[in-house]
Amino acid sequence: MAAKTAITPTREQDFAEWYQEVIKAARMAENSAVRGCMVIMPWGYELWENMKGALDRMFKETGHENAYFPLFIPLSYLEKEAEHVEGFAKECAVVTHHRLEQGPDGGLVPAGELQEPLIVRPTSETIIGETFAKWVQSYRDLPLLINQWANVVRWEMRTRLFLRTAEFLWQEGHTAHETEEEAREETLRMLDVYSTFCHEYMAVPVVAGEKSESERFPGAVATFAIEAMMQDGKALQAGTTHFLGQNFAKAAEIQYQNREGAREYAWTTSWGVSTRLIGALIMTHGDDDGMVMPPRIAPSHVAILPIIRNEEDREKVMEYVESLASELRSQEYDGRAVRVVVDDRDMNAGERSWDWVRKGIPVRVEVGPRDIAENAAFYARRDLPPREKKSMPRAEFVQNIGTVLTEIQDALYERALAFRDASTRRIDSKAEFYEFFQSGGGFAVSHWNGSAEVEEQLKNDLAVTIRAMPDGPDYEEAGTCPFSGEPSRRRVIFAKSY
Amino acid sequence: MAAKTAITPTREQDFAEWYQEVIKAARMAENSAVRGCMVIMPWGYELWENMKGALDRMFKETGHENAYFPLFIPLSYLEKEAEHVEGFAKECAVVTHHRLEQGPDGGLVPAGELQEPLIVRPTSETIIGETFAKWVQSYRDLPLLINQWANVVRWEMRTRLFLRTAEFLWQEGHTAHETEEEAREETLRMLDVYSTFCHEYMAVPVVAGEKSESERFPGAVATFAIEAMMQDGKALQAGTTHFLGQNFAKAAEIQYQNREGAREYAWTTSWGVSTRLIGALIMTHGDDDGMVMPPRIAPSHVAILPIIRNEEDREKVMEYVESLASELRSQEYDGRAVRVVVDDRDMNAGERSWDWVRKGIPVRVEVGPRDIAENAAFYARRDLPPREKKSMPRAEFVQNIGTVLTEIQDALYERALAFRDASTRRIDSKAEFYEFFQSGGGFAVSHWNGSAEVEEQLKNDLAVTIRAMPDGPDYEEAGTCPFSGEPSRRRVIFAKSY
Repeated sequence: MAAKTAITPTREQDFAEWYQEVIKAARMAENSAVRGCMVIMPWGYELWENMKGALDRMFKETGHENAYFPLFIPLSYLEKEAEHVEGFAKECAVVTHHRLEQGPDGGLVPAGELQEPLIVRPTSETIIGETFAKWVQSYRDLPLLINQWANVVRWEMRTRLFLRTAEFLWQEGHTAHETEEEAREETLRMLDVYSTFCHEYMAVPVVAGEKSESERFPGAVATFAIEAMMQDGKALQAGTTHFLGQNFAKAAEIQYQNREGAREYAWTTSWGVSTRLIGALIMTHGDDDGMVMPPRIAPSHVAILPIIRNEEDREKVMEYVESLASELRSQEYDGRAVRVVVDDRDMNAGERSWDWVRKGIPVRVEVGPRDIAENAAFYARRDLPPREKKSMPRAEFVQNIGTVLTEIQDALYERALAFRDASTRRIDSKAEFYEFFQSGGGFAVSHWNGSAEVEEQLKNDLAVTIRAMPDGPDYEEAGTCPFSGEPSRRRVIFAKSY
Repeated sequence: MAAKTAITPTREQDFAEWYQEVIKAARMAENSAVRGCMVIMPWGYELWENMKGALDRMFKETGHENAYFPLFIPLSYLEKEAEHVEGFAKECAVVTHHRLEQGPDGGLVPAGELQEPLIVRPTSETIIGETFAKWVQSYRDLPLLINQWANVVRWEMRTRLFLRTAEFLWQEGHTAHETEEEAREETLRMLDVYSTFCHEYMAVPVVAGEKSESERFPGAVATFAIEAMMQDGKALQAGTTHFLGQNFAKAAEIQYQNREGAREYAWTTSWGVSTRLIGALIMTHGDDDGMVMPPRIAPSHVAILPIIRNEEDREKVMEYVESLASELRSQEYDGRAVRVVVDDRDMNAGERSWDWVRKGIPVRVEVGPRDIAENAAFYARRDLPPREKKSMPRAEFVQNIGTVLTEIQDALYERALAFRDASTRRIDSKAEFYEFFQSGGGFAVSHWNGSAEVEEQLKNDLAVTIRAMPDGPDYEEAGTCPFSGEPSRRRVIFAKSY
């Protein structure tokens, strides 16, 4: 008999529905009344703040500075790069008026039509490019390494919380360089920063590699991505970096005087990750009891739940709880104080405990009279089954909390990596490839002749695309494309994707 | 003969123009090509990040959590509170379409008209209210204490960097409470948080008090503000908190079951400060040589400028500079590491030094061969005249850096306070009042009979308004309104304002 789970349906029963239910049960986000726009709730937002904090430090350590650019992009700017506008015109929010006035039937209607419509930024290459053109005069102004934390809007028709929403939060790096080589280096450096972040903070293993032409960012010369594997075997693109060549520099006239005194176009890059990463986190670590937060980015590390069976115990229990909380807070984990929440809500203890299971807090501690008598901490780790609880002498528990959190962080990564490895297969025959994706799927590491026709065919037949073309001996070997029979210069990663 | 200044014009020559020039010289922000929208440059944005960080800690310490709500507000939501929509309808960005398509003349034109126009949030009471209506069911869900960091848009016709821009960055707190008393307490608590922040972090003295009815937030029952005095004697409203009564709760149906089991409307508040605070900072501390950054929120604390006269000295100088920088960074100021920047740009030493003067960095250190020979630090404080430099033994300088920064922070506050005190006058006659504002002005602390007609008259005659009605014995005394001759229950603060 299967144990009862906190989330219905389970991952196996209906993965897509399970995903929505985890978000709801953990109170991380919800749909708003505005089509496609989400409300990020405190538990989800604090997670995002921690992710932002870690990424921001990594960006600053690699020499980037933050700045802020306008929300609106004049239509004419967007049109300057032909492929770019083509890529974004079909789904954008267009501002056409700048006030409201009484309409004929008494209600308010848009008034004050703008001479030129404004697009709510879907990404900021064009508007930032205009500014860079002013900031960059000489090679001395390069490299220019800027990052922006912002909201962006893409009018997606079918939306899903965190994965695909009309408005989302992200960061977008925009850099300008003296040489092609430097810009290419930057593109790969930031890809590496993203991989490191996913691995070390999110405990999410990713593969990194270039995208095929058909998956390239509109206007880019080359697009690179990190791809994570979700528990349903699908890939999720968790971040991209783009080498833009001189395309956007030419569109916006980002020119500089080089060391020889001649005018030249700069070489630019852009790169971004978004609240979509939270979707990746949920589908990597979440289980049938709800969310599982990796300690390094968890909003809180420890929930302490006082168990008060008789009112006369209240004072004693709360005293123990508060002093335990403050001892834990004085411990360090990951260079900062351990984050502790005391939950004394007026609810049954079991309910409260399950609430924290569903929220995915790394450690839960229940404190009742017996624990106080024994001067112990009765605790459970979120990476272990929910009923597997353990008692430890209080002082030992406090002293070890950092170690426990580190163990949880590592265990989550190892589990995700093992899952990915088990769901990754080197496939050399078309039949096996089709069979693999018709029965579950995962990452197929297969040869490809480089043609868009093969990509198109696989997309139509199996909804499978090339996710990344990673470097390294596992991929860079000659062989035969199983789909065309033609020679292939390398293996690539195929998968279904979000 | 006047000393040459780094900023032209000086404050005395043309205060408005001086303000723009300081922002430009310090590279804090610039106008973008998008009407009324600014670009916040790295030096300005890092200042904002530090301000955000301090405010965010204060919000969290007072029990608030961050969340994120949609950028767009359906027109019908805005219309639910009659005064509110009236207040914002005249200047808002209206989204009417969700894609672009080829127009008859080949260019792109808006397409996909929305059934209901969306307003880019000018403030979020209505959209957050809709969400609160779902989150609040029982008195157990109260108080609900939420803050949002976001961008907002108000289509201002005349814009000025930081002070009045179409798009700006801000935080907006939104809370719901069980009782009127609790909501009123929250309104005053956050007013106090804002005052404390301005005083302790920005070194800007403010007066806090309720606004008169004519200056109330659209839809509020009572609005409170903190007002700072700029160096031209004008007031700048630096933050507001609003007691909204049950107005927005009724508009959005925020109802809860009270302790007796009956349904009741919640009592709500909202409060916000924005990038406008940066304008207040510039006009409080800036001088004729540029920006002056208070150490607690300065992007960097110390600029070290290597002086390399001969290439053969370079290595020795840079070694000294780097080790001095790392010693300074290992010192603590305000609970964090001292922030040090080494500026070895290929520019003349004087130019580099003046660049940091204009940017307002608290401490500049010049390092040349003589300083190395003496193992000394030759430094200047931004709060003292730019040519007043001092040499100090290196170890002593490093050890004292925190004290020096504290002294600068305190000196800036004391200077601003002295200026405000000198420009504040208790005035009891109409003639003196008119004379005061016709010749410079400042804060006039005068009686007022409470009538809107008097306010209207003073606004028309002198462009003077009531900035705040502070509590306390200096204000709460009976007297005679000098404008109407009628009895008055209290003094209020009158001033010209931004």
